[in-house]
Amino acid sequence: MALISKSLIKKYGLDKLKNKLKDKGKELLRHTLDQQVTLAVTGLSRSGKTAFITSLVNQLINEGSGTKLSFFDPVHNGNFIAAKRVPQKHFHVPRFDYDSAMSALTSEPANWPKPTHGISELRLAIRYQPKNSILKYATDMATLTLDITDYPGEWLLDLPMLKQTYQEWSKQTHELMKKAPRAEYSKSFLAKLAKIDPFSTASEELLAQLAQEYSALLHTFRHTLGLSVIQPGRFILPGDLAGAPILEFFPFPALEELDGNDYQNAPDDSFIGMLRSRYLEYKEQVVRKFYQEHFLRFDRQIVLADCLTPLNKGKESFADLELAMSMILQSYSYGKSGLFSRLFSPKIDKLLFAATKADHVTPEQHGPMVALLNQLIHQNKHQLNFEAVKVKTLAIASVKATNSGLSKHKGKDIPVIQGRSLAKASAVNSNSANSNISHSDVDESTEIFGHKITVFPGAVPSQLPKDDYWQSSSFNFIDFAPLSGLNKHQCLPHVRMDQVLQFLIADKMI
Amino acid sequence: MALISKSLIKKYGLDKLKNKLKDKGKELLRHTLDQQVTLAVTGLSRSGKTAFITSLVNQLINEGSGTKLSFFDPVHNGNFIAAKRVPQKHFHVPRFDYDSAMSALTSEPANWPKPTHGISELRLAIRYQPKNSILKYATDMATLTLDITDYPGEWLLDLPMLKQTYQEWSKQTHELMKKAPRAEYSKSFLAKLAKIDPFSTASEELLAQLAQEYSALLHTFRHTLGLSVIQPGRFILPGDLAGAPILEFFPFPALEELDGNDYQNAPDDSFIGMLRSRYLEYKEQVVRKFYQEHFLRFDRQIVLADCLTPLNKGKESFADLELAMSMILQSYSYGKSGLFSRLFSPKIDKLLFAATKADHVTPEQHGPMVALLNQLIHQNKHQLNFEAVKVKTLAIASVKATNSGLSKHKGKDIPVIQGRSLAKASAVNSNSANSNISHSDVDESTEIFGHKITVFPGAVPSQLPKDDYWQSSSFNFIDFAPLSGLNKHQCLPHVRMDQVLQFLIADKMI
Repeated sequence: MALISKSLIKKYGLDKLKNKLKDKGKELLRHTLDQQVTLAVTGLSRSGKTAFITSLVNQLINEGSGTKLSFFDPVHNGNFIAAKRVPQKHFHVPRFDYDSAMSALTSEPANWPKPTHGISELRLAIRYQPKNSILKYATDMATLTLDITDYPGEWLLDLPMLKQTYQEWSKQTHELMKKAPRAEYSKSFLAKLAKIDPFSTASEELLAQLAQEYSALLHTFRHTLGLSVIQPGRFILPGDLAGAPILEFFPFPALEELDGNDYQNAPDDSFIGMLRSRYLEYKEQVVRKFYQEHFLRFDRQIVLADCLTPLNKGKESFADLELAMSMILQSYSYGKSGLFSRLFSPKIDKLLFAATKADHVTPEQHGPMVALLNQLIHQNKHQLNFEAVKVKTLAIASVKATNSGLSKHKGKDIPVIQGRSLAKASAVNSNSANSNISHSDVDESTEIFGHKITVFPGAVPSQLPKDDYWQSSSFNFIDFAPLSGLNKHQCLPHVRMDQVLQFLIADKMI
Repeated sequence: MALISKSLIKKYGLDKLKNKLKDKGKELLRHTLDQQVTLAVTGLSRSGKTAFITSLVNQLINEGSGTKLSFFDPVHNGNFIAAKRVPQKHFHVPRFDYDSAMSALTSEPANWPKPTHGISELRLAIRYQPKNSILKYATDMATLTLDITDYPGEWLLDLPMLKQTYQEWSKQTHELMKKAPRAEYSKSFLAKLAKIDPFSTASEELLAQLAQEYSALLHTFRHTLGLSVIQPGRFILPGDLAGAPILEFFPFPALEELDGNDYQNAPDDSFIGMLRSRYLEYKEQVVRKFYQEHFLRFDRQIVLADCLTPLNKGKESFADLELAMSMILQSYSYGKSGLFSRLFSPKIDKLLFAATKADHVTPEQHGPMVALLNQLIHQNKHQLNFEAVKVKTLAIASVKATNSGLSKHKGKDIPVIQGRSLAKASAVNSNSANSNISHSDVDESTEIFGHKITVFPGAVPSQLPKDDYWQSSSFNFIDFAPLSGLNKHQCLPHVRMDQVLQFLIADKMI
């Protein structure tokens, strides 16, 4: 107390000051207990990021109201106290709109929440009773601050560009465009490029026009073909960069056939010179900026992937998911083959791949689903070095949209799921034409809010499918709407969200 | 030549190398002649920024095709050679879309170009023959690189926030909201705030909701009331910041009545604490960022102001324009009363205020128009110190939309303008009801593309209008569409664009 100046005592009064110091002490104690996790959430192929984050927040803030989190230790062991939303860390990042998403899920008829654009954040303060901590006798609770950052999967897929020259990137992207399923749509664009002399003086208007065509192609790849590898990612969600030259470049075919010196010496105002400088600028101003401002700060990453839609769409769509996975893994493996050296690496120590929409197949298919996801990842694992990163795979449903059961089919019990189809009645009929249950078995009790159907969508292959699988096309899954009657103040039904929480945050709550 | 290594000679060949060195020499010479100007263009009250930039570029790149630039010395003296668009400096800034703007102006029927959102850039390379330079015997041409940066007037109006605390800003903004014309619209919002205890723990959802209401108010002020002072400017054009907490604050009434200590010690999670910290974050992340990344780089500034709409709208709208002008002048005056000290000041040395839409009044009114604009500015001048900044005022029309002439009215020749009204036929009738020419004098030869009318819109006051002016409401101007038959490859008709160019760039072309 000798150190406290008289003026301070005068300012606060002695009692007030004593309380302030006491609070300070408590605060210090609490800080030693408190934990902080920055969880990054991203997804491939419309995997349901928004539904996932909404469910994760919902499970934690409504804990106690119909909770089903028995595999999440802090809840199972009774250490979990409560969680609430608190103001996020970065004021200039849009807030994840939890309320709108919950409104969509709990409206009648229930809808899937609108997808997010770009990056958003949400912070949870999770109170718990530390059990195994060094401070187990402290009466104080501890708080885990969980920062959730939601960002587009395309931004993650852009990271490998940091290691590529324009020539290398151009070659890789051009290769993709020459093959099915992109080739058919890319033909006329590539034909236009073939007519251009790369060393001629560039017209900005022509560059802008071709870049617009290339962006339109990326939209087709993403939305019509359901592909995962969309580069550069910012082209389909430009935000404030719309109309900026940094988004006006594209791969140029056959760069490898050019003389190396000619390419290097191409003037800045030539066609190829301008493409090259804009590519470099994109890498610096967009990709590296995301890396430095966000990616470096992430502690844990979950990558959501919808494996079912690519299985539905066919061989090429599935191969594209495979490619996307291997591109993503580059960012988490360190050393020679990885993207970043350990020294400048992100600090991510846990990486979860979750196959979403597990409720869209019958429960006994979850095993094959995870096995398939493991194959997608592990085929790369031997060449990568995950020294410090724990990797896990799970088959989940963020918000369960079906009920499962058994149905008699030709005298035998077969597993089925029942839900409200998202497609219109006519579309459902054609969709389910290939399914293993004949049409007459589908319970077509049409509701006012859509089509309620019971279906066996088929078996998920537990290995990367071979050609004969694609020829038999035995798998056909249907998009379901959320179940009706969900409640804002109750926990949403889910599949394995407790295991997600266990892997991602339970070790920070001991 | 002794210094040139053998390997270089081998690489390029001797002849190539000689040419390279020669080019280098030319380049050095050219660089000593070359000039660079960064011209910032902004506007108040839908003043026609897009039309202005389009016309400026058009006049320069089409010089020779119907040019009317006799007051622009480089053209008048024959020193001007040619201008062309070249790639802009900053790749991450959207490009000003000249082509779309020209397409709108030259379509049938002709339209005004769509307004720009946020910032955009365009670069011109202007070739000229230096006449008075120290190098007048050089056969080489010189190039003036003109970087045009277009940004919203609201961003300029945000700059004074850099010097204000949240309390000060809140007080100033609240004062405005209590007075006409804002009061009527602000009432219910202010009533909600009055019920809030500023020291209570804030709910983020409530803050978000109130901020949304405040943004809606700003939109009303801007678009319904035609007001100029809109703060914070980013609230009405949020771009990538949409939904971010940094845009979720607002002025809080009666902060000055709070105890200073209480206010200072308000915890960060209290209502007032959160408003304060978001205001500070907005200043740092938005206002200071604009200041550092753009404003500091500007060499010259043109502020476009539509004085006619406020004259039409009435006393309060005009007073708001006055306030906006005085806020803008703060950023260009240095020393005690100015916003920036000369040390950290922007380098702007010329500041042009242009009253736009001069073609919307009869030519003899241009004098009073400039006199009025001078009054708007000079009333502040005595308290400001413009040591290093040259200020000028002009009445201009970027793209002339009317033809002027004389018309007989009650046996007397009176000046009139003729053009195609933007309003629909019925609206025109009511619009022109107050004009000095009686209805029967209006030439109503309805065209397929709108309503062609001849009108005398009234006299512009050459002094800041007094109360009796507003009571007589003798002024009523009509919005005109662009003239038809404009051509992309010809110079657009204009009023005093040559004087604009003379002031802004002629001194860099000698």
